Amino acid sequence: MSLLAVGTIAFDDIETPYGRAEKVVGGACTYISLAASYFVKPIQLVSVVGGDFPAEMLDQLQRQGADLEGVQIKPTEKSFFWAGRYHADMNGRDTLDTQLNVLATFDPILPPAYRKANYLMLGNLTPQVQLQVLDQLEERPKLVILDTMNFWMNIALEDLKKVLQRIDVLTINDEEARQLSGERSLVKAAEVILTMGPRYLIVKKGEHGALLFDTKGEMFFAPALPLAEVVDPTGAGDSFAGGLVGWIAKTNDTSFENMKRAVICGSAMGSFCVEHFSINGLLGLDETDIQRRIKDFSKLVHVDF
Amino acid sequence: MSLLAVGTIAFDDIETPYGRAEKVVGGACTYISLAASYFVKPIQLVSVVGGDFPAEMLDQLQRQGADLEGVQIKPTEKSFFWAGRYHADMNGRDTLDTQLNVLATFDPILPPAYRKANYLMLGNLTPQVQLQVLDQLEERPKLVILDTMNFWMNIALEDLKKVLQRIDVLTINDEEARQLSGERSLVKAAEVILTMGPRYLIVKKGEHGALLFDTKGEMFFAPALPLAEVVDPTGAGDSFAGGLVGWIAKTNDTSFENMKRAVICGSAMGSFCVEHFSINGLLGLDETDIQRRIKDFSKLVHVDF
Repeated sequence: MSLLAVGTIAFDDIETPYGRAEKVVGGACTYISLAASYFVKPIQLVSVVGGDFPAEMLDQLQRQGADLEGVQIKPTEKSFFWAGRYHADMNGRDTLDTQLNVLATFDPILPPAYRKANYLMLGNLTPQVQLQVLDQLEERPKLVILDTMNFWMNIALEDLKKVLQRIDVLTINDEEARQLSGERSLVKAAEVILTMGPRYLIVKKGEHGALLFDTKGEMFFAPALPLAEVVDPTGAGDSFAGGLVGWIAKTNDTSFENMKRAVICGSAMGSFCVEHFSINGLLGLDETDIQRRIKDFSKLVHVDF
Repeated sequence: MSLLAVGTIAFDDIETPYGRAEKVVGGACTYISLAASYFVKPIQLVSVVGGDFPAEMLDQLQRQGADLEGVQIKPTEKSFFWAGRYHADMNGRDTLDTQLNVLATFDPILPPAYRKANYLMLGNLTPQVQLQVLDQLEERPKLVILDTMNFWMNIALEDLKKVLQRIDVLTINDEEARQLSGERSLVKAAEVILTMGPRYLIVKKGEHGALLFDTKGEMFFAPALPLAEVVDPTGAGDSFAGGLVGWIAKTNDTSFENMKRAVICGSAMGSFCVEHFSINGLLGLDETDIQRRIKDFSKLVHVDF
């Protein structure tokens, strides 16, 4: 089934306890596309880059399954840039620099072939841009997945609430779930958020896994795989989203049972992502690697009573 | 199989976002005993209280399956007292007061009937006292489980290392595992700690669940059950330990497969504990409650691929 992904394609400077990576490829759309590509192809991308973005990087995305028709290139402008430093425990990070560049005036335009996408992944962007994407669709996708963050809750809550009414799955972290709902307990937070529009809520807890909730009070928990080395957490959430939506688009099944499998696929792609800097953990995998990783997740929680 | 539990029986003042509880019953041995009592009875207790400790509270412990022969009562002294206030997110707490009282001179004495215990749970206490207990055993128990904390790593590391050489299972939290091993990754931390004596390591992550490691590199993860209300986290770790050792003593099986079940039983008892102040969440449960809670854990992570 066709999959449309909207988000940033960017440069990152990253500093973690394992080292530094300068001006490496990043951005939500990049990670989503690479992670999803192991489940479904092509992935229709809507994004924007500047003239400084290397053509060979776009070629690489294309070779991995990205359809770049919806990626705008602005030759006289610069690409979105983010610089961050992770804390020693990797659970927190400081943003050192953010240069919106092309993103400041991003006007997403969906090519005609994208407007009947079966599945839509809206990566973290201003809610206004997310609404513009939704407005261009000719048909309601079977599932719309939204990623967002506390920043938009702080400065654009009303727009964000409008987006929430038009989506099916919301992915946020635990603190964001608490902020959006005003509830401390994630169980209660889910109840509140699931009255705002989405029918599934996924709470991402980083190294502590992810929780899936539905409107009937069903819950599912996927742990994060304990890894010997977490080298760079950048893009883990987007890789999670990519694996999730990739699995859903591949299987064309939006039931709770299949969402559970999707959460495991997302967790698997997130675990590959963090083992290397930038996008390197998502390159060169094969079917066997992914199957083995999914089995590792099953084994990690398996117990017979 | 016989089960011996060593630890504090105490008074607590507790403040959480849900309210305050003053001079309520607490202490590691109390929680361990109550949680374990749903799996095996009697539980032989070694502890000490002052003359201020109500006889009816000891009677209650006894009715729940505790053998109090090893509990010393010092009529002219006061019981151990701890006061703490939990942060809004319940994941952190400040100790407001600690009065060692009877604990300052605690000399654990094992009644002769206790000295051949099959299973031993050493609750969090000074490593010196834990060594004194081990020295009084006539036979090596089938499994010795040790709970400890960063405080002893800071001030009594050499004694603690001696204890570690004589135990089978260590339960500590994630930060303590990192401190004890000097490794940031829990996978690597486990490798280091499992060369120090224990053959199983259980890393308790509070609301984020628990990880079990063995010396062969096997891992098992048990989530914490997402609860609508966490009223008072006090005693959750000790309830976990009680459920864990209770299951092991009941089943008399120390294999990794059965340790996994034990971790689920521990998690179940921890989840009951935190739903009410003090020990109230551990009172009045029945077999059905516990079976249902264990099923909730299985269901939470169950997925078919």
